[in-house]
Amino acid sequence: MIDYISRKANLQLKMQQKQIDAIIITQNVDLYYFTGSMQTGNLVIPAKGEAIFFVRRSVVRAEQESAVAVEALNSLREFEAILQERFPVTFSEAKQAARKLTIATEFDVLPVQHFRRLESALPDVEWVDGSMLVREARMIKDAYEIGRIQEAARVIDIALEHAIAHVREGMTEVALMSLIETTLRQNGHLGLMRMRGYNQEIITGMVGSGAAAAEPTYFDGPAGGRGLSPASPQSSSNKRIELNEPILVDIGCCIDGYVIDQTRTIVIGGLDDQLTFAYRIAESILRSTETYLRPGTMCDELYTLALGQAAEAGLSEFFMGFGADQVKFLGHGIGLEIDELPILAKGFKLPLEAGMVIAIEPKFTFPGRGVVGLENSYLITEQGYTKLTCSREGIISIHP
Amino acid sequence: MIDYISRKANLQLKMQQKQIDAIIITQNVDLYYFTGSMQTGNLVIPAKGEAIFFVRRSVVRAEQESAVAVEALNSLREFEAILQERFPVTFSEAKQAARKLTIATEFDVLPVQHFRRLESALPDVEWVDGSMLVREARMIKDAYEIGRIQEAARVIDIALEHAIAHVREGMTEVALMSLIETTLRQNGHLGLMRMRGYNQEIITGMVGSGAAAAEPTYFDGPAGGRGLSPASPQSSSNKRIELNEPILVDIGCCIDGYVIDQTRTIVIGGLDDQLTFAYRIAESILRSTETYLRPGTMCDELYTLALGQAAEAGLSEFFMGFGADQVKFLGHGIGLEIDELPILAKGFKLPLEAGMVIAIEPKFTFPGRGVVGLENSYLITEQGYTKLTCSREGIISIHP
Repeated sequence: MIDYISRKANLQLKMQQKQIDAIIITQNVDLYYFTGSMQTGNLVIPAKGEAIFFVRRSVVRAEQESAVAVEALNSLREFEAILQERFPVTFSEAKQAARKLTIATEFDVLPVQHFRRLESALPDVEWVDGSMLVREARMIKDAYEIGRIQEAARVIDIALEHAIAHVREGMTEVALMSLIETTLRQNGHLGLMRMRGYNQEIITGMVGSGAAAAEPTYFDGPAGGRGLSPASPQSSSNKRIELNEPILVDIGCCIDGYVIDQTRTIVIGGLDDQLTFAYRIAESILRSTETYLRPGTMCDELYTLALGQAAEAGLSEFFMGFGADQVKFLGHGIGLEIDELPILAKGFKLPLEAGMVIAIEPKFTFPGRGVVGLENSYLITEQGYTKLTCSREGIISIHP
Repeated sequence: MIDYISRKANLQLKMQQKQIDAIIITQNVDLYYFTGSMQTGNLVIPAKGEAIFFVRRSVVRAEQESAVAVEALNSLREFEAILQERFPVTFSEAKQAARKLTIATEFDVLPVQHFRRLESALPDVEWVDGSMLVREARMIKDAYEIGRIQEAARVIDIALEHAIAHVREGMTEVALMSLIETTLRQNGHLGLMRMRGYNQEIITGMVGSGAAAAEPTYFDGPAGGRGLSPASPQSSSNKRIELNEPILVDIGCCIDGYVIDQTRTIVIGGLDDQLTFAYRIAESILRSTETYLRPGTMCDELYTLALGQAAEAGLSEFFMGFGADQVKFLGHGIGLEIDELPILAKGFKLPLEAGMVIAIEPKFTFPGRGVVGLENSYLITEQGYTKLTCSREGIISIHP
């Protein structure tokens, strides 16, 4: 069902263009993408020819799961000799040209300690950063991946509707969040969403109400939430949900490894004029953005357009966070991780391509009062786009 | 309440012994331990004198949370000049001795890309691995930390009893796991447990029944579980719980950042003689281990003793995983992360010290049949130990 041969071929094409002889992949999500297995090990993909997944643990499980040939490898001591034997063409080409091998690995996630072990095991190598290579390869989704994200979108809608039916004045944010998590688990959510960024955690997203949603956080998103404690300073808190304040429900789930990311604004009662106006502007930014969603549109243009619309409405300082804590993007790729490429951000000069899946999340933060906005996930197609999010839009008002 | 001054002083003593001029801490959990805040930034602790937390985001939040002085720092461009100004003694001492500054950072978790940015920003530095320095400092818990782990132990017992009351034949593993997660969330669980190891994820632990619990995994523990998919090849699966098979409930939660880790064996009906015997041996290993829990006992001795007892019972090949997938330890430290120091493992030549908190988990894996065993967490005291786990022991049999 999953076309691992194409995935490898796409990566190899990029490697050949960049004159990289091989890539050694070690991160769990990247391993899964290229092999179908997340067992611990080193996946070696040469610029040409077949890959080998050198597995430390569990070899038994990797053999069941991996679409790529598996070899047991417990220590890196013999790694150089084994690679020379398994990839003779790669080594001999470099030797004939009297140059070092160029090997890429994922500098954005690989800890220094692990990297130094690789450096010691393979001393005659010029190491280069393969992060963008892998992230760009994973940026374009295939049919299987789109299907999984669609399933995640279906599940998150069930959880949202359940939350809408059960939210009550006086309930804590975390109680509503827990209801959502339970529904997600009953519908196949793996129990975590993965995030690539160093130190970033997403849990299941957040239910954030009123002032608590508007608190600034380290989280690399427009609204992180107060959280339960400084030991988890983001997401839902023990604050009780009140009448007439925005309840931001920014949630996701993970189905067979693939995540969805969506946001809706709920209120028990009604929002005041300024918050209602800001919500309408967020919706209008999303509608305008949609008209540009097609291959060829530059990612940074979408961000610039949104900034312009927020400014026109007189809401610049509230857009995508408040003041010094604003984030500088409008949307981000999703897939096996929540923080994938592309990024709709200033300076991100990449044209949209068919197969990208992007969460777009115009939001406005009002300190002390709350966050309003919405977020949908879209698939870019040859013709334009398909909206993957299937939840109802608009301010979702509940009678007190 | 939390004595950040002692925490810093302990680390500085170790730094002075190792002739390290300063440490730059970047990982969220380590930042929290030394500052009380998890905001994104670089915490600089010199070998002598006051620390400064250079925060990128959110500065506002860091100022509310941090016990250490906060300075905003958006880019590393001026970092060297700023450090020279803020830490004149550190820099001048190195200059007078005509040597480079020695700065440590957490090589075990810091990605290569981030480290290279630090290297570029501070080119005249000899970088050393500060992972063990930080992990050893965090290994000895203070009164606040012990209190939080005790609270986590209390909460996990509530969740266990709720699970015992609700487990039924035909229920899926993940349904029981979800019940546990809901109880935990209602009692303050932050929604995630942290694990330091590269690529390691723990979610909330696992409910694993019969054959599914015994499947090998990449997870660095004696029993990982089948999981819902190769995209999350550990923890609970959709397997239905059957009569007369062991249900391993290896769960934890996170209260104010601190985790507990405990395991109990449940059965609806009864276990056969071999599984019952193996459970009794696990209990007997735990009882023997307890008699050695006091300052001065070497960590590796406890592992060797357990191996001996498993061998005496004729159960060596089933101990701590099966065959090639066995793990080589009996227990591990817990605290802000689930995989802390010390490790009760071969070659881990460190004496127990008062203030260590250790999860000890003798387990036996029978492929195709299940995993039996138990796990308690202990505080090492001057006199011996205090058991922190408060759940009932023994095979917990439920009438079908």
